Amino acid sequence: MKKTVIEEIAKVKLKDPVLIEGLPGLGMVGRIATRYLTKQLSAKPLAKLYSPHFPYYVLVNQKGSVRLLHCLFSFWKNKTGKHDLIFLTGDSQAQTIEGQYDVADSILDFAKKYGVRTVITIGGYRKEAEENPKVVVVSTDSALLSKALKAEAIASPSGNPIVGTAGLLLGLAKFKKMRALCLLGETRGYLPDPKAAKGVLAVLQGILEIKIDSSGIDKEIERAKKIIERMKNIAKERETHALKTRKIEEEKVTYIS
Amino acid sequence: MKKTVIEEIAKVKLKDPVLIEGLPGLGMVGRIATRYLTKQLSAKPLAKLYSPHFPYYVLVNQKGSVRLLHCLFSFWKNKTGKHDLIFLTGDSQAQTIEGQYDVADSILDFAKKYGVRTVITIGGYRKEAEENPKVVVVSTDSALLSKALKAEAIASPSGNPIVGTAGLLLGLAKFKKMRALCLLGETRGYLPDPKAAKGVLAVLQGILEIKIDSSGIDKEIERAKKIIERMKNIAKERETHALKTRKIEEEKVTYIS
Amino acid sequence: MKKTVIEEIAKVKLKDPVLIEGLPGLGMVGRIATRYLTKQLSAKPLAKLYSPHFPYYVLVNQKGSVRLLHCLFSFWKNKTGKHDLIFLTGDSQAQTIEGQYDVADSILDFAKKYGVRTVITIGGYRKEAEENPKVVVVSTDSALLSKALKAEAIASPSGNPIVGTAGLLLGLAKFKKMRALCLLGETRGYLPDPKAAKGVLAVLQGILEIKIDSSGIDKEIERAKKIIERMKNIAKERETHALKTRKIEEEKVTYIS
Amino acid sequence: MKKTVIEEIAKVKLKDPVLIEGLPGLGMVGRIATRYLTKQLSAKPLAKLYSPHFPYYVLVNQKGSVRLLHCLFSFWKNKTGKHDLIFLTGDSQAQTIEGQYDVADSILDFAKKYGVRTVITIGGYRKEAEENPKVVVVSTDSALLSKALKAEAIASPSGNPIVGTAGLLLGLAKFKKMRALCLLGETRGYLPDPKAAKGVLAVLQGILEIKIDSSGIDKEIERAKKIIERMKNIAKERETHALKTRKIEEEKVTYIS
Repeated sequence: MKKTVIEEIAKVKLKDPVLIEGLPGLGMVGRIATRYLTKQLSAKPLAKLYSPHFPYYVLVNQKGSVRLLHCLFSFWKNKTGKHDLIFLTGDSQAQTIEGQYDVADSILDFAKKYGVRTVITIGGYRKEAEENPKVVVVSTDSALLSKALKAEAIASPSGNPIVGTAGLLLGLAKFKKMRALCLLGETRGYLPDPKAAKGVLAVLQGILEIKIDSSGIDKEIERAKKIIERMKNIAKERETHALKTRKIEEEKVTYIS
Repeated sequence: MKKTVIEEIAKVKLKDPVLIEGLPGLGMVGRIATRYLTKQLSAKPLAKLYSPHFPYYVLVNQKGSVRLLHCLFSFWKNKTGKHDLIFLTGDSQAQTIEGQYDVADSILDFAKKYGVRTVITIGGYRKEAEENPKVVVVSTDSALLSKALKAEAIASPSGNPIVGTAGLLLGLAKFKKMRALCLLGETRGYLPDPKAAKGVLAVLQGILEIKIDSSGIDKEIERAKKIIERMKNIAKERETHALKTRKIEEEKVTYIS
Repeated sequence: MKKTVIEEIAKVKLKDPVLIEGLPGLGMVGRIATRYLTKQLSAKPLAKLYSPHFPYYVLVNQKGSVRLLHCLFSFWKNKTGKHDLIFLTGDSQAQTIEGQYDVADSILDFAKKYGVRTVITIGGYRKEAEENPKVVVVSTDSALLSKALKAEAIASPSGNPIVGTAGLLLGLAKFKKMRALCLLGETRGYLPDPKAAKGVLAVLQGILEIKIDSSGIDKEIERAKKIIERMKNIAKERETHALKTRKIEEEKVTYIS
Repeated sequence: MKKTVIEEIAKVKLKDPVLIEGLPGLGMVGRIATRYLTKQLSAKPLAKLYSPHFPYYVLVNQKGSVRLLHCLFSFWKNKTGKHDLIFLTGDSQAQTIEGQYDVADSILDFAKKYGVRTVITIGGYRKEAEENPKVVVVSTDSALLSKALKAEAIASPSGNPIVGTAGLLLGLAKFKKMRALCLLGETRGYLPDPKAAKGVLAVLQGILEIKIDSSGIDKEIERAKKIIERMKNIAKERETHALKTRKIEEEKVTYIS
């Protein structure tokens, strides 16, 4: 594999489609949100993107098979609304500087073929946790931006960098005559953060004028909460244990001296 | 984006133009000086340079929009003198070795198209601060060098390396049959240094035989001074605080033992 | 050398050949197993693969000559069975991300020319040592997988990454319409581990339906055991010595105070 | 500059020329030896090699000018012997893996154009200093090797890596149907080591059947010796000073406690 390739799986005609991208990144916000949408809408596989800029390993599947790291495009036919959707999520982002630009470019060229005019990218925005994490938005298009603000996203302060594919797709969109919007869910970013993803999903539904059952993401949030509690308990026990050990050591020292 | 591209914004004819480059680098000297000139002369946008060798993020603008990292060429029509000017400044330098050579080459090829025969690059020269930082000069052309020395720049000691675009443009100029000069303002380099930039601007005016109002750069110098004082105060307070804390701790220890 | 090249040494027709790859990696399992097979079957040189993605040094040979780092394809004509074999082992894997994909691709293209439809790659699987290290298997093909499981390999848990050429060949095989299997010998991985390689050889004989004398690999295992014992002894002596030194130091301190 | 370029300075016909390469490396042995030969024989400039794989800076020359990093080919017409000589030395080696292979390839292609059939590379061989550092030799050609051994070089133990251009030229020579020899002067390698270079020059004269005045290199050895002595003295003084300081501190501590 000498360069990025996209292998088409299905041939479909799509109605003024919108591309929604969420690759692994801060708090896995983009990936969690995009995968959830893909499942809820039963989106169908459209194409796979492979690249020599991805890490050089394969992953073992559940059936004892393996898969090359890749990104998956899938599509959803929107029977009631104006826009079909194309989703993009995957295993990894490109690992080198030039690779990042190359993969982002390949994604947009592929979307162009399907007539995509609007790109929405999803990522995380590093911030200490609050009860209800907000969704930060930036856009290359003021109409699109207003829509997101109406859907209760907040505008990003200026000067912020948006790193990786979620950012580059916005930066490169104008070269392909597309408009683009980026939704960033506030997250501490250390662990996969379905709560941040839920916030993004809410804004996204407002923008896309679709309705999605959010009970599944609530379950993911519960699971994530339990994992964090378990981790906190382990940390606490370790600390208590360390404290005891130290006391014992100190007592020993006292006896010796 | 698979390679460096230059997107032209305006079509103009320029009179024997000189290219003046100042990208981010040591003490931001080049960028500060070039941006100041661009503003003072109300230079107009000419072209944007994008490159897959720049960092892979986008920056949020003030209106909630984003921009891909790039360099901006702008031009100034010189009504009284012999040379129109092209300025080049921007967000970043290339991030890889091969990228540095590639971007420098693209810059010169673009300048060539406009008939540029002389290139002036600006950067910082690491040196402990003095009241009046000097401007160090090197050139591929002895006539150009004399002009700079007459304008009170001082010659660089031999053996010095000039790193990055400011250096490579000089090195590559001869392949494009251009002559080139580099002005380096002495700076400690830790923080943006408008004082070093002011020194360069003075020499530059001498070389280019133009007059520029320097009151704006004086204001920047005042602002930078205040920032440094504020940082020093913070550092001092921290130290005082740390000292007190230590004393309290030591007293505690004394009581225990 | 601007790109990966394969220099053919022999021209042969091969009967439905299987490619067996074992390059340097974890515990050197792949390289040890593949080299042992090559020697035991007196495989003949077929081609050399050179690449600008290999480390930039040459190795001194025994006769005072040097060799560029490379991988060697060799072949074995199977007089009694259905499949001739092509072996691939060598000095190094590619050193960059893009290089890994490029070299793996070149290997498969070469194999394709000889009509290879099945690829078997060999590597190490990091695990604390047991008396009888197991062999972990994954495959792109369920029939091939069953064969390996019948030959007493165990299925890999899902989610595992297989890093480097051994993994990428599996991931890329489907693009060349090949099926592939990877055998990973359990190893601690710190030192060349012929015991892990022996396990792999046993499974491999089951899959390929060939018989190989394993007395040579047993000798290698003995040698490796002795090396480890010697290293343990050295470590022990060092510790004893350090302990003594510390005691002496402490006594000195006692006398002084 | 998008790729390695060689700019020819002179057009000459050379008699069965031998290429002698010595770029910066361990102990600067190759560069010192090659530059010394170039000067002694008053070799004339032949061509310059520039590459985007060299570090991205320029160096200030003595006249206040700058130069792009490059390698210089020069030639010497041998009036009495059978072989003219081409020398190659320069500012730097390539900085990336692929760059190393690319530059080595470009060097050999250029040499090929002049009919070079024999390449001699020079480098350092890390070894603790002895009074008379030996010269280690490897070659792709047994006749050439014997010549070097007769000239009192010693054969390299097998398994040694020869890193960088000096090694790669040997490894790549066979692809260009050339034979090659590498001479490595034993050196500690921390500082430029003219003594190691002198050893190489002696062997080289034997192989090439030429005579060179070595008084100049003896002066360089003297200079290097003095530098080392000065550095030792500085280190000693520092140690003495540190010892005194420590004593004073300890006395203070004694008074306090």
